[in-house]
Amino acid sequence: MKMSKSSIIALTGLIFLSFVPSDQDEAIIRKIYDEQLTNSPAYDNLKFLTKNIGCRLSGSEALDKAVEYTRNLMLEYDFDTVYLQPVMVSNWNRGRKEVARIVDQSSNTLRELHCLALGYSIGTGDNGVLGEVVEFKSMEALREADDDLIKGRIVFLNQPMDPTLINKFESYHSAVEQREEGAPVAFKKGAIALVIRSVSINNDDSPHTGYMANEGGDIMIPAIAISTNDANYLNDLLKKNNSIKLYIETHCKTLEKVRSYNVIGELKGDKYPEEIIVAGGHIDSWDVGEGAHDDGGACIQSIEIIRTMKVLGIKPLHTIRIVLWADEENSWAGNIAYANKVSEINEKHLVAMESDHGAFTPLGFHYQCANNKYIEILMSLKNMLEPYQLTIFSEGRPGADIEQLKDTTILKLGLFPDSQRYFTLHHSEKDVFEAVDKRELELGAAAMTSMIYLLDRHLDFH
Amino acid sequence: MKMSKSSIIALTGLIFLSFVPSDQDEAIIRKIYDEQLTNSPAYDNLKFLTKNIGCRLSGSEALDKAVEYTRNLMLEYDFDTVYLQPVMVSNWNRGRKEVARIVDQSSNTLRELHCLALGYSIGTGDNGVLGEVVEFKSMEALREADDDLIKGRIVFLNQPMDPTLINKFESYHSAVEQREEGAPVAFKKGAIALVIRSVSINNDDSPHTGYMANEGGDIMIPAIAISTNDANYLNDLLKKNNSIKLYIETHCKTLEKVRSYNVIGELKGDKYPEEIIVAGGHIDSWDVGEGAHDDGGACIQSIEIIRTMKVLGIKPLHTIRIVLWADEENSWAGNIAYANKVSEINEKHLVAMESDHGAFTPLGFHYQCANNKYIEILMSLKNMLEPYQLTIFSEGRPGADIEQLKDTTILKLGLFPDSQRYFTLHHSEKDVFEAVDKRELELGAAAMTSMIYLLDRHLDFH
Repeated sequence: MKMSKSSIIALTGLIFLSFVPSDQDEAIIRKIYDEQLTNSPAYDNLKFLTKNIGCRLSGSEALDKAVEYTRNLMLEYDFDTVYLQPVMVSNWNRGRKEVARIVDQSSNTLRELHCLALGYSIGTGDNGVLGEVVEFKSMEALREADDDLIKGRIVFLNQPMDPTLINKFESYHSAVEQREEGAPVAFKKGAIALVIRSVSINNDDSPHTGYMANEGGDIMIPAIAISTNDANYLNDLLKKNNSIKLYIETHCKTLEKVRSYNVIGELKGDKYPEEIIVAGGHIDSWDVGEGAHDDGGACIQSIEIIRTMKVLGIKPLHTIRIVLWADEENSWAGNIAYANKVSEINEKHLVAMESDHGAFTPLGFHYQCANNKYIEILMSLKNMLEPYQLTIFSEGRPGADIEQLKDTTILKLGLFPDSQRYFTLHHSEKDVFEAVDKRELELGAAAMTSMIYLLDRHLDFH
Repeated sequence: MKMSKSSIIALTGLIFLSFVPSDQDEAIIRKIYDEQLTNSPAYDNLKFLTKNIGCRLSGSEALDKAVEYTRNLMLEYDFDTVYLQPVMVSNWNRGRKEVARIVDQSSNTLRELHCLALGYSIGTGDNGVLGEVVEFKSMEALREADDDLIKGRIVFLNQPMDPTLINKFESYHSAVEQREEGAPVAFKKGAIALVIRSVSINNDDSPHTGYMANEGGDIMIPAIAISTNDANYLNDLLKKNNSIKLYIETHCKTLEKVRSYNVIGELKGDKYPEEIIVAGGHIDSWDVGEGAHDDGGACIQSIEIIRTMKVLGIKPLHTIRIVLWADEENSWAGNIAYANKVSEINEKHLVAMESDHGAFTPLGFHYQCANNKYIEILMSLKNMLEPYQLTIFSEGRPGADIEQLKDTTILKLGLFPDSQRYFTLHHSEKDVFEAVDKRELELGAAAMTSMIYLLDRHLDFH
């Protein structure tokens, strides 16, 4: 039996007045969606960020331009406060295009491989690295392997993402350890280089880069990802012919850290201006493609939260703060600096929301919350968003940039979009503006704005 | 409060034994998804259908090839019965590429327009049609307009899809009447041609064709769709300059009907072989693009239902029948012939399912059912599919090809995929294989198979 909305209100109104959504809320959410779907500048703004500025690796000039551009958007949209938080960010540089090829014993090329060096990996220089290959299907197998098998050889980690998981972020987590921890483990066992299968869901020719653990710079082997098609080819070849070798040449370097910024803008709370509801994405990206889904879309969507509230005359009770965090891809410098500052000044963060799962059709939200009372309130808001096809509200990791926020942050949320297409383009040359659909981008912005609006009004912390 | 599954079973088991999903069902659904996500030939089969055969307009040789190809797939996958139902299908032919341009009073070209003639529209021949333009923003405005305003002029219908509707099929229905009914109304009021704004959601340069009402061939004016960008341009120009004219040249013709086929394959029911659960899509497409989302994906997904059941050794209680209907796009000849045959032989159809909303990530199902008991059973199956992100079960039009099935068909269902991207490519050159994601296609096939499996087991009609 489904109760009518009015009977639910009648039953619970006196007890939980603060979190019973009203017809007025319904009308405001409708207005938020109408504003996004008819007047939103989000798509044009993302076009500028991706096409005019492009990819925004930490340490790059493009990142400076993106900081300036998004700051100006916040000013243009008349945010109450706009400021930059300085952060020293990583400065890994790819240098000249990397090379990887399969060669025979006489160094004749058998196949050129589509490859990308991993973030924080070292360069081989012009002489490259040449060696025999030893393949492992998992990190576990690599960890258990005898060092003698690895010493002096090139380790090839070839673990596909688990195709049977429906949420592709779970598939990603099933395979990403080879990219993050493969090089340290292989190095300690005496390998001369690491090659991984790109952490990507489909079979194609695009390699996918990404972070590897080497902040200290002491993992002294080159490390590359090759495309899934090339990984399959290499796997087949190794079964038939173990006299082949790999030649790898990379020109990357980790340079001195440079100054960049978290871009921050606020709409002051009408009743509790000292209490913060924060939402955002990360302003940096990888240095291939245009960082459109990861995470340009989310930066633009986050800015829309306050723009939309201002246009519609919504006055939030708490202060709404948008943060575009710096250097999520490599060092997490931006989110760590932000969380440290929050702790230092003992700022009260009630809610933190991140969007870092792509600008695809939103399906709902992931949340983390230790207090059942607030989970209940969150669930009571669900029926306000179901008409907008936001139906999935489940526990899950909300986003890297809000992980460091602890203590006073009562509720963390991550926008949960359809994840099926994300890992074909994530960290690759395919993550471009053309891969973003205008409506899907707008629906994500409307979903974030609506949820922030509802939480501001109905999550009573007093 | 959420009841545990076991307590629900304990409470309802004796009363509604037939529709309580069991742990065994849960395991079988997991197997259906695993089979699709690891071993499915669906993506390769769709590649063949779209890339080797291509678009499949009724009356074309390509449609014959598609009939042969899909019939052979059913044979290859060892369906119990495979046969073709002959149907006389429409045979409208586009002929030489159509032309539309804005010209000034001296017939100098101001702009070439991206255009496509509408299905069943007539050709102008080599001399084309030249005339002044009168614009309307809706069918209502056209219907109300004075005939004198229209006589001897070209009617321009310029109604955008409503952008604020979340389900894009609702947006489509808000605007498609101008394509279907615009020409008959304009013709009766004395217009010399019809130009419509493409029924498409975003602004771009691709025109979108589609059916218009002229089966009898008595609407004697040419009718074309122009791209949304061109429609906006023409609208702007008409505001500033009403001395412009349009030149239109089309070479289309409606030829004699030709024989084609509904492609039909079955898996015989173990207990009630005379009772049918039917599922399918339509085998024909428009003559631009490759008919990948509309409706090639669904044909391939439907074939997967029986292939998957056979591979997993699932023996259905009722007969599962797959039908790939002919000529959905123009005359509905295939689905009418099919429904007539069902009535004629008084065949019992319990369930009919169609997929004709694109091969995007499935979100749930639309249904039509006059009997609350069966809606209740359908809803009781929902929690088996929620782990696969199928969360939307709502009343709605399930699909054109199963509309004619009446009387004994107790429950009609339409797969409900994410609809945001569909109307940027529908009936246009953009509806190609590359626009289909492998995982999304497979998830749709798994969703259809799982639902058919559950309905076969739990919908007790006896």
